[in-house]
Amino acid sequence: MAVNYTPATKVLPVDGIRLSTHAAGIRYEGRDDLLVVEIAEGSSVAGVFTQNRFCAAPVLLCREFLKSHSPRYLVVNSGNANAVTGQKGLDAAREICAELASLTGVETEQVLPFSTGVIGEQLPVAPFKKAFPATLKGLSEDCWLDAAKAIMTTDTLPKGISKQLEIDGKTVTISGMAKGSGMIEPNMATMLAYVATDAQVEPALLQSLLKQATDLSFNSITVDGDTSTNDALVLIATGKSGVVVNDANQPEFFTLLNEVCQYLSQAIIRDAEGATKFVTIEVDTAPDMETAREIAFTIARSPLVKTALFASDPNWGRFLMAIGRAPVKSLDVSKLSLWLGDTQLIEAGEPVATYTEEQGQLEMDKLEITLRVSLNEGSAATTVWTSDLSHDYVTINAEYRS
Amino acid sequence: MAVNYTPATKVLPVDGIRLSTHAAGIRYEGRDDLLVVEIAEGSSVAGVFTQNRFCAAPVLLCREFLKSHSPRYLVVNSGNANAVTGQKGLDAAREICAELASLTGVETEQVLPFSTGVIGEQLPVAPFKKAFPATLKGLSEDCWLDAAKAIMTTDTLPKGISKQLEIDGKTVTISGMAKGSGMIEPNMATMLAYVATDAQVEPALLQSLLKQATDLSFNSITVDGDTSTNDALVLIATGKSGVVVNDANQPEFFTLLNEVCQYLSQAIIRDAEGATKFVTIEVDTAPDMETAREIAFTIARSPLVKTALFASDPNWGRFLMAIGRAPVKSLDVSKLSLWLGDTQLIEAGEPVATYTEEQGQLEMDKLEITLRVSLNEGSAATTVWTSDLSHDYVTINAEYRS
Repeated sequence: MAVNYTPATKVLPVDGIRLSTHAAGIRYEGRDDLLVVEIAEGSSVAGVFTQNRFCAAPVLLCREFLKSHSPRYLVVNSGNANAVTGQKGLDAAREICAELASLTGVETEQVLPFSTGVIGEQLPVAPFKKAFPATLKGLSEDCWLDAAKAIMTTDTLPKGISKQLEIDGKTVTISGMAKGSGMIEPNMATMLAYVATDAQVEPALLQSLLKQATDLSFNSITVDGDTSTNDALVLIATGKSGVVVNDANQPEFFTLLNEVCQYLSQAIIRDAEGATKFVTIEVDTAPDMETAREIAFTIARSPLVKTALFASDPNWGRFLMAIGRAPVKSLDVSKLSLWLGDTQLIEAGEPVATYTEEQGQLEMDKLEITLRVSLNEGSAATTVWTSDLSHDYVTINAEYRS
Repeated sequence: MAVNYTPATKVLPVDGIRLSTHAAGIRYEGRDDLLVVEIAEGSSVAGVFTQNRFCAAPVLLCREFLKSHSPRYLVVNSGNANAVTGQKGLDAAREICAELASLTGVETEQVLPFSTGVIGEQLPVAPFKKAFPATLKGLSEDCWLDAAKAIMTTDTLPKGISKQLEIDGKTVTISGMAKGSGMIEPNMATMLAYVATDAQVEPALLQSLLKQATDLSFNSITVDGDTSTNDALVLIATGKSGVVVNDANQPEFFTLLNEVCQYLSQAIIRDAEGATKFVTIEVDTAPDMETAREIAFTIARSPLVKTALFASDPNWGRFLMAIGRAPVKSLDVSKLSLWLGDTQLIEAGEPVATYTEEQGQLEMDKLEITLRVSLNEGSAATTVWTSDLSHDYVTINAEYRS
């Protein structure tokens, strides 16, 4: 039921990255729920993690391990978030890392753990230990799509993408995967995304590029305004292509990285829990970025806006209600203009006389809806993507513990 | 489908207040949609209004008129909010006030207009003009419940209450009514509430008492986090009981006023769009009130918390997720405790070992659910009331333009 979203049939391998999935039976039956990613020695790794104060045990360990060690393995499970599990949860995550480390001859701190699923249940260690030997045997460069499937919870479709460009006659590949469709309003990164490139990028620059791309992609989406306890986005640069990202080619590389991150984050919205619409909210000519973001996100989170979108009801008063309640320092509504697709609804704070309900209906009937707010108070602009609020969203979250 | 809510069968008259309702056909067919309230000369009137920046034409006029004039009439319609209607909407509201003023021999500015219903449609003046003569003929002290019905939109039940106390051997009455069940997160006042007393209260004191009571009632509820463009709460003191509210009896009077405001605001939550649960969220031992309120409201607004409440699912990880993402300056989760009813879930940031899913299920199965968060970081405390997010909420807001 995803909106205009067909998963990629192929995600290109990235030299220096091998992956393997396994049905470890951690929670789900009859499907892969464990992913191990092997990262070649000498790679740079950058990560951004949830700002939720109840961040999960694996997030705490990732932050700790990344301070002092260069990661060689990622271990990811779906079905159990290992969040709000106290010291026991931390111990379990560490034991899982230690086990994988001893099997592969690296240090415990070189294994980064990730979990997604139900919050507040203890993560069993035994299924990991049992599954690791077979999982490691299966490591392969060419199973990104299987990996994207193994990390799904309420997702209906896997999310993966590859982009390539030529630099100095050499091909650089960026491949990425993500999961997530509910509890989505990332604050630093979204629930589990992994992007890798064979370019060589110095660690500080890699972290900076990741932060910039995150703000334009994963930090610009919302399904329900609820920030996960487990959000994590990891960017790996193996350097195996022989291309070094430098001042000259950095813009080009960043554009590609941004395309991958935007594709994956938009795929999360297209596959959002119960989504029937893909909604783009643009706010421009704002006095500052904070005002632009607050207004865009207030519209994007409003249950009344989201139910009107679900109903394809051009009840545009709700858009203005949401703009008017946004927690911004100041807002001169008499300067504000509003467009629904190509149809202008509001000019200088007043309804456009020529607007007809039929025009509005035509725009709202579309699967992809764009709302544009011009504040005419400055030059800041932002774009946010969101989904609607449907019966299926309620059903999924009322009847199912992810 | 309201939760544990049976409307009062009687709302006591208040000496100095007469009311009348009429089926003016402004939008709805076959029901009263117009209310006129007459206020005796010499009464004090205080009001609080929405902080939504797109506030409606009637709200703008109320604010303007109250600056310079003492109100003698309120005119209220349901079905059309007269919000985001530009200069035309302001002109219409003013014309309605002028018409009622000329029929009753008061000044235009002594008539306060109120509207509730669809945003963005022009309010027709003719139905008011046509209905006013008959409506004025029907003025009576004893029709508060009819009035409460006439101002309903998506409400399923009218909301009214009376409280009395003895001061110096004389009886003081406070009666009130309110409407509202969606687009509810009042910021200063909720969508249309009227409270009157026959006590005599000096205007500045009346405004101050109203502000205090509002913060403890209407400003402490949320259905969907969406603040209406038309919120208004008016408190009238006619003085007809002969009792003057002074320093000595003010605490007693305030307690009663607070009871009326809390009853009405809680009635709005009990009758919230699609509500199947009445939820009380208490946050205590917070470092400051702002932190307490942000945490309480973040839980109350969270779609994932609200769908878990609808499902009676003790998925308490969602409560912690919401607490963890609350936009507060600081939060030491290692001190935090959490109770669901009488069952403790979290002690000092970790799950309580003796907790069982059965205990949680027992609490979540109740119609009235209390969640208590102790931060153990200070002495600030707050209580917020909210409803769940059900299929009916989606249906009501997707299929119906209120």
